[in-house]
Amino acid sequence: RCHHCSPAMLDVPFLPFCAFLGALGLLCVAMVGTWCQHWRGGFSLDGSSRTFNWHPVLMVTGLVVLYGAAALVYRIPNTWSGPKLPWKVLHGSLALGAFVLTVLGLEAVFCFHNSQGTPNMYSLHSWMGLATVLLFSCQWAAGFAAFLLPWAPTWLRALYKPIHVFFGSTILMLSVASCVSGINEKLFFSLKNGTMAYKLLPAEAVFANTLGLLILIFGVLVVAALARPSWKRPDSDSPDSRQVQDALGG
Amino acid sequence: RCHHCSPAMLDVPFLPFCAFLGALGLLCVAMVGTWCQHWRGGFSLDGSSRTFNWHPVLMVTGLVVLYGAAALVYRIPNTWSGPKLPWKVLHGSLALGAFVLTVLGLEAVFCFHNSQGTPNMYSLHSWMGLATVLLFSCQWAAGFAAFLLPWAPTWLRALYKPIHVFFGSTILMLSVASCVSGINEKLFFSLKNGTMAYKLLPAEAVFANTLGLLILIFGVLVVAALARPSWKRPDSDSPDSRQVQDALGG
Repeated sequence: RCHHCSPAMLDVPFLPFCAFLGALGLLCVAMVGTWCQHWRGGFSLDGSSRTFNWHPVLMVTGLVVLYGAAALVYRIPNTWSGPKLPWKVLHGSLALGAFVLTVLGLEAVFCFHNSQGTPNMYSLHSWMGLATVLLFSCQWAAGFAAFLLPWAPTWLRALYKPIHVFFGSTILMLSVASCVSGINEKLFFSLKNGTMAYKLLPAEAVFANTLGLLILIFGVLVVAALARPSWKRPDSDSPDSRQVQDALGG
Repeated sequence: RCHHCSPAMLDVPFLPFCAFLGALGLLCVAMVGTWCQHWRGGFSLDGSSRTFNWHPVLMVTGLVVLYGAAALVYRIPNTWSGPKLPWKVLHGSLALGAFVLTVLGLEAVFCFHNSQGTPNMYSLHSWMGLATVLLFSCQWAAGFAAFLLPWAPTWLRALYKPIHVFFGSTILMLSVASCVSGINEKLFFSLKNGTMAYKLLPAEAVFANTLGLLILIFGVLVVAALARPSWKRPDSDSPDSRQVQDALGG
């Protein structure tokens, strides 16, 4: 009896959803900072575990939250008309900012390992994280070359665009999976002594587990927002370009 | 000069892609079984770590591979014509099989913890995994009630379908993230003594890290296949039902 209200009921407007995502992203950044400051001894550059603490903060801020913001730029309705270049520059700059924070985040953990004599790159977390960062660097370089430099021919841009869109969502899923495995691993490392063991679920464990779940929710919501057809640039709705743009699942 | 070849070049046919996914899924199952059999002492029902070994095998087989197969049923072109009921029954049965294996996988880890006196449900891995299984049980029950029982009105089915599709992909992403955090955690637990420590990257660590990456690739490819518009049932391409079906990012 209410067949036609169903699409309308699910048709959340983009901007309020985006404001909610922004608040959720800021909450994740605040929580990862609080975790490292309040329970893990704060921050320094001396190669100690206080140097390591930059790693989760920079990764959550760069590779999840700022990356998510960069990915969502073309879903803002204002970007659908007028010159494209300023929006391309904004998208590329936010992604570059995310990339710089990510590289600093890697630097923090390598510096910590090296000063402690711990080998680098042995855990599944590190393999997955490095694969994510390598994909991100290829994504940024190829996006810059194809869409910002003037030399790429139209057919190459059309061919590469769905690949860029597909890897955009994929890299975010991988970075979220890297974050939760890293938080899990860090809690096992840190909460070892008798009164504070992870398995007794002290306040720090509840706090950081909750942070992990919020990062997952943030990632799922950004990927869903990217995939939603009614939030995509309308000029990509012609059957031909739609097939190109969506061909790989973007 | 080659503008029209771009969509065609990306237009992989579904069935060969599906065969590749099937082979990748079987490889993941074979590898998790080999890991537990060859390096972790095999399987038993006595509450020891050999009982725990059922946990990764059942979770990868049920919550990732069989779940992925269930999710892809409606992408088989044969399902697009003729009566829908047999395909609905197949989809629901594969999902039920995945759910049963998942519950047995939970049973294995609870049985192991209880017989060792280890608390349950403290790690981020366990929180994320349990959230995934709870979402999966709601998804199965609501799907059964809305699409297989005859009483749901058409408007309710139309309203619920995009939600079911959205959670279908989301649950798979969460189960993949749960698997990789679990493999990472298990390797830290198991590879502790001097000669075999995880950080020295013994053969077992390389093998299980590779398994984790293959599970990630399997999950990303299934989610991408589900999202690809040209692989969806054509009758959902009318503007109205397409908006409903895709509204939440399916």
